[in-house]
Amino acid sequence: MALSNNTNPSDVVLNTDLYELTMAAAYYEAGMEERKAVFTSFFRNYPFDSAYCLLAGIGQIPQLIKDFHFEDDSLRYLASLDAPQGGKLFSAAFLHYLEHFRPNVDIYAIAEGELAFTREPLYRVEGSLIACQLLETALLNLVNFQTLIATKAARVVYAAEGRAVSDFGLRRAQGPDGGLSVARASWIGGVSSTSNVLAGKVFGIPVFGTHAHSWVMSFPTQLEAFRAFAQASPHNCVLLLDTYSVESGVRDAITVAKELKTQGHSLSGVRIDSGDLAKLSKYVREELDKAGFQSVKIAVSNDLDEFTIQSLLTQGAPIDSFGVGTKLATADPNPSLGGVYKLSAVQKSSATDELLPVMKVSEMAAKRTIPGKQAIVRFANAEGQFAGDVIYDPDITTYDGVVDAVDVLDPHTHYSFSGLTKKELMIKIVDNGNPCATQNTLDDARKRAQASLSHLDFASKRFLNPQTYPVGLETSLAHVQENLIEMSY
Amino acid sequence: MALSNNTNPSDVVLNTDLYELTMAAAYYEAGMEERKAVFTSFFRNYPFDSAYCLLAGIGQIPQLIKDFHFEDDSLRYLASLDAPQGGKLFSAAFLHYLEHFRPNVDIYAIAEGELAFTREPLYRVEGSLIACQLLETALLNLVNFQTLIATKAARVVYAAEGRAVSDFGLRRAQGPDGGLSVARASWIGGVSSTSNVLAGKVFGIPVFGTHAHSWVMSFPTQLEAFRAFAQASPHNCVLLLDTYSVESGVRDAITVAKELKTQGHSLSGVRIDSGDLAKLSKYVREELDKAGFQSVKIAVSNDLDEFTIQSLLTQGAPIDSFGVGTKLATADPNPSLGGVYKLSAVQKSSATDELLPVMKVSEMAAKRTIPGKQAIVRFANAEGQFAGDVIYDPDITTYDGVVDAVDVLDPHTHYSFSGLTKKELMIKIVDNGNPCATQNTLDDARKRAQASLSHLDFASKRFLNPQTYPVGLETSLAHVQENLIEMSY
Repeated sequence: MALSNNTNPSDVVLNTDLYELTMAAAYYEAGMEERKAVFTSFFRNYPFDSAYCLLAGIGQIPQLIKDFHFEDDSLRYLASLDAPQGGKLFSAAFLHYLEHFRPNVDIYAIAEGELAFTREPLYRVEGSLIACQLLETALLNLVNFQTLIATKAARVVYAAEGRAVSDFGLRRAQGPDGGLSVARASWIGGVSSTSNVLAGKVFGIPVFGTHAHSWVMSFPTQLEAFRAFAQASPHNCVLLLDTYSVESGVRDAITVAKELKTQGHSLSGVRIDSGDLAKLSKYVREELDKAGFQSVKIAVSNDLDEFTIQSLLTQGAPIDSFGVGTKLATADPNPSLGGVYKLSAVQKSSATDELLPVMKVSEMAAKRTIPGKQAIVRFANAEGQFAGDVIYDPDITTYDGVVDAVDVLDPHTHYSFSGLTKKELMIKIVDNGNPCATQNTLDDARKRAQASLSHLDFASKRFLNPQTYPVGLETSLAHVQENLIEMSY
Repeated sequence: MALSNNTNPSDVVLNTDLYELTMAAAYYEAGMEERKAVFTSFFRNYPFDSAYCLLAGIGQIPQLIKDFHFEDDSLRYLASLDAPQGGKLFSAAFLHYLEHFRPNVDIYAIAEGELAFTREPLYRVEGSLIACQLLETALLNLVNFQTLIATKAARVVYAAEGRAVSDFGLRRAQGPDGGLSVARASWIGGVSSTSNVLAGKVFGIPVFGTHAHSWVMSFPTQLEAFRAFAQASPHNCVLLLDTYSVESGVRDAITVAKELKTQGHSLSGVRIDSGDLAKLSKYVREELDKAGFQSVKIAVSNDLDEFTIQSLLTQGAPIDSFGVGTKLATADPNPSLGGVYKLSAVQKSSATDELLPVMKVSEMAAKRTIPGKQAIVRFANAEGQFAGDVIYDPDITTYDGVVDAVDVLDPHTHYSFSGLTKKELMIKIVDNGNPCATQNTLDDARKRAQASLSHLDFASKRFLNPQTYPVGLETSLAHVQENLIEMSY
């Protein structure tokens, strides 16, 4: 994986918070480099007052692990760092250790494109404490952002009720790479295309685009501009109507549509990028229809999100497709997913191989973490509709034994999922540092997202007060958590 | 400039919205490839209810232009694209043209690190219509985001009143490259360090980090964990107090501080990452002082921004430094700067070389653009305090002739800046596609930011109802705008 800002591809190992390296160094200096651990990533709250997240970014983890090794250039930089109180930050011995370091971890994850809910293990990393720490920042950076954007995209696509949505967000994204990740995650979330050409090349996503206001302003008149565009691009002709006024725009577009028709071509569509899109789209649809151009599509853009799209359709706006930019690429108004990566089991002494479950104990239930090695069973009813998820520890309870649970935040709420069909959600994606044989493609993830969303109750998909999806802690895992809380007092 | 997500360095040309390429193709097919234009970038609104922005990203433009050429791999992808209504999207002739295309543009920009205000030309690009369009998305993507983050960072640093601020945002940024841009822009904005190791290597920014909760949880007891960290890292020892409770944390930290002292070392600091930071920092300060460790610094983190920092200091919290992550890296709660890039002058016919000023005419003054080639004069009083800016067209008025202006949005408000000192803000950074000889370094930009902010009235820097900074349109340029508006009716 290469990076931008004039970096080297091998710099991927330095794409990390310094404390991961200072901890790794300290483990090394303490002779604990073989000490084993399990880290689990999860999020505590949904963005956008949503009741679900759509998991994305997982598909890029195996390559990240494969590419992870320290080259001379990176090691030279680390060797150059001074400690605040004198001397070098890293010892020569530790740097030598890094030279041969490979992250020989196993990683289990929910498949990309599945729905994920609060507190659920999105992925768990099993390996040495050092390897787990050195991967933390890169994994969070990868999965937090793409999951956030895939979730936003799923909401926007849901609001569009089957109409096409195109990702227009590149110019407001965090650099070229941010724009690529937006396009990738949005595609998983269900958009139909992207304006981002590079995303087309890298991920095979369909690309979409025609012309801007500047095209119209570069000609003496709007009609000449439309005519020239239609002439140059008769097979991809969507005319932008609002450079001067939508009234003059639709008038000139109809003139050009007629000319195209006599030449055996047809105007694909028109786009409106400002003003009252509900009113203007109705006006434009009427004008086009009156002129006999029922087949010309209407696209709109301009600061759209799931709420404006829903409002437009509620008003009966005859819109065929939506270009969604800034608010998709920046996940406005919740620009971050607070995904964390917590130690959940660790070999506390070199005297034993045993991994002990650990957790962050807090007086507030909302701040507590779940201990141990975690997997998830998802239950569905006979119609395939999701009924609830249960987090369990496969070292304590077998998959078959998962039935009863307590709510993940409230131990007084019990769930029983007997009689429902079940599915194991976590799959192994990295084995001893190597990508597992079966890798899912981006299109697999997109299809999985579509299927998963269709199995989620509509009440959990609405924007206002969506219904909370049940997530339980399998009874014996709940006991482990209780015991750890009691032991801490 | 390389990109992430397994791209090639040469892919920088595809880091664009498709419509830039379809417009370029249409200009080419229309025989307009030599037609000249001026595009101007500006923003209409400040993020965060701020009254200024701090410009960043400009320093990376020259390299972007230099690297901009289409290689076989990119051209093959473009050649593969089909038009929606049949045939190929791009003609062989246009792709051949791209093969030899270089963006031979001149670019003038406000220097990186200067303050920028609404409506001001941040940069202007002069060249062929095709070149200007092909650069649009990449330039917006570069400058919008970094300016947003530099502005956020400046606000956070202002709130910290001289205390150190560290960028902790990588794990919530838009991928590795987004994290790098956050670190770069934050450094310009005045932060003292970053947790992002790669940003340290690439940009020479000081890096900061010690250990996480997981370190403490990996040992049988907190005291053993602190002791092991101090042993392994005596010259960079900041202990995290809140894994179990801040009370036990500070107790164990004091024990280890005493042990370090007997070994001739000293504890650098402690960090608190949760809870009521005002109360807890006071408690920790008292405990450390009672034990004789007045020199041990207190760092805090946990969802900080300019408002929480200001609140903490107002409460007298004895905090020495702040780690600011998510809300800095995502510019919460305004995750985008709406910077645009508009055609402001164009050669409308091949019959003449003349560039005609153009503008987007709208009934709403707020939506209108400024026509022509634009530069800026910044006025300051005898003490160096900025008094106001005037946008002018150097082809109409000389720098020396800039004195009187009307407000950029309200032509009834007049400004006269006679008798004040003046400075031309825009400098040439790209000449005919080549970086200009004198390039500013990142540290130049950081110093310039510090100086500029010190010359801005404090009333414009406060967070609540900041005072609007005067931005005028030089009188003769205002006339050009008026005439264009009248002509359009």
